[in-house]
Amino acid sequence: MVEIIVAPNAGFCFGVKRAVKLAEESSHLVKNRKRVFTLGPIIHNPQEVGRLKSIGIKPLENEELQEGDAIIIRSHGIPPEKERELKEKGLRVIDATCPYVKAVHEAVCKLSQEGYFIVLVGEKNHPEVIGTLGYLKECNGKGIVVESMDDLQEAFRHEKVGVVSQTTQSERFFKEVVGELSLWVKELKVINTICNATSVRQEDVYTLAPEVDVMIIIGGKNSGNTRRLYSIAKSLNERTYHIETSEELNPSWFEGVKRVGITAGASTPGWIIEEVRSKIKEICKEHSYC
Amino acid sequence: MVEIIVAPNAGFCFGVKRAVKLAEESSHLVKNRKRVFTLGPIIHNPQEVGRLKSIGIKPLENEELQEGDAIIIRSHGIPPEKERELKEKGLRVIDATCPYVKAVHEAVCKLSQEGYFIVLVGEKNHPEVIGTLGYLKECNGKGIVVESMDDLQEAFRHEKVGVVSQTTQSERFFKEVVGELSLWVKELKVINTICNATSVRQEDVYTLAPEVDVMIIIGGKNSGNTRRLYSIAKSLNERTYHIETSEELNPSWFEGVKRVGITAGASTPGWIIEEVRSKIKEICKEHSYC
Repeated sequence: MVEIIVAPNAGFCFGVKRAVKLAEESSHLVKNRKRVFTLGPIIHNPQEVGRLKSIGIKPLENEELQEGDAIIIRSHGIPPEKERELKEKGLRVIDATCPYVKAVHEAVCKLSQEGYFIVLVGEKNHPEVIGTLGYLKECNGKGIVVESMDDLQEAFRHEKVGVVSQTTQSERFFKEVVGELSLWVKELKVINTICNATSVRQEDVYTLAPEVDVMIIIGGKNSGNTRRLYSIAKSLNERTYHIETSEELNPSWFEGVKRVGITAGASTPGWIIEEVRSKIKEICKEHSYC
Repeated sequence: MVEIIVAPNAGFCFGVKRAVKLAEESSHLVKNRKRVFTLGPIIHNPQEVGRLKSIGIKPLENEELQEGDAIIIRSHGIPPEKERELKEKGLRVIDATCPYVKAVHEAVCKLSQEGYFIVLVGEKNHPEVIGTLGYLKECNGKGIVVESMDDLQEAFRHEKVGVVSQTTQSERFFKEVVGELSLWVKELKVINTICNATSVRQEDVYTLAPEVDVMIIIGGKNSGNTRRLYSIAKSLNERTYHIETSEELNPSWFEGVKRVGITAGASTPGWIIEEVRSKIKEICKEHSYC
């Protein structure tokens, strides 16, 4: 009998899981004839967005919002003035902002109150960063977003600098920014707000890939974090395959196989992982060679 | 007429200059038949230590200290319990601890009081570091000295880490330590206590060496900071020479020379620099070719 091991941190991170759960739970509103929207696609996975649509929860497009509608703030969060606007319209606001993102909002305000000029390490146009900047403004803080080392110049003029990070920031760049700042400013306070979701997913692969005969990576072919998982696994186990859904599984991969490892990128829902697992079992049963 | 330009930051740093001045000023005690000692050689320059000896101020060796003797704490500083001991013996304590070193003592206590575990980036056996550790103990702080990245492990177990530096620490290593820590601890506070004496001396050379015909670097042949000044200058100006005293000046170096630049390592007293300047003028006068 083939043994199938799913990596402990495969698929959705904590914040996305929580946001999807909150969205699902709001389906009772749909039953009560309320309209429920998400402010942008809740996750970059068309299958999952489609599944939520089928239970009446859809990304806001051109619809005119009306009093009584429910609106779900997705895990990235939004600026507080935007949230107030929604509430003032008489909407029911369901806040699915990731708690790790909320921690960044709190950190920028805490550091500002302590007199630090904020360096937010992250992508200028990322919705999470836009939300955090809103909180910084709200608590009368000053700061900049640092996307490349060139952006740092402005921070050097300040004596006290506080550093936080977009939750999905790369550790390497964060480390470089903090090191450089430590030479230029008198007092530096760093609150590391990088979420470990990406790194634990990669650590799983380092452990699992060498211990199995075949390794399956599930996730969008254009998803950066999934491709990285694939390349780590491939370097440790030649029989590694990257698929988006169970339909891409090729029975020949499993001939004579005793142990299969599975992991998935952060935007892959659990039910797609489950489908892949079942399909592999089915293949083994059908061909009786694994 | 030859033009001789002495780099603005040549020779003694602020702290050493101040310590030597305090030592010189204590010669009035010698006149009043008091004995005056320095706790270790006040500077690593035998000529300067010899000069101070000649006015009665000598490094403590095997002498038994007696009530009424004066003792000079050199720029590195000492642990507070050691200072108390000296005072309890009825000695007159002259504290020539560098103010930048005092700032490190204050920083470790401030950070400890704020709940940070201290990382002191520096050399474990350096007298400055030993002094600072004494202050850390005095204010009930906890911490470690980090000399290599391996030493950092212990700090990773702490949620709040405060970083300071030995004043003469290399910026490159400090930056590396701070960057690495930022990934491991929840909250990091950095007070950069590196003194810029070394870097400003180097910056002087970057500016001066390309603008002169001949560049003279004065300082111990075994002095790390002087050798570094020499290698920077040499890379910018082929006609760069490293000497310890004016006696090593070779008249042939100055043939047809219009501009001479001079700088000196941190342990070279001003009067040795002055001797070199005079000697070059003399050479030019004698040979009338510069």
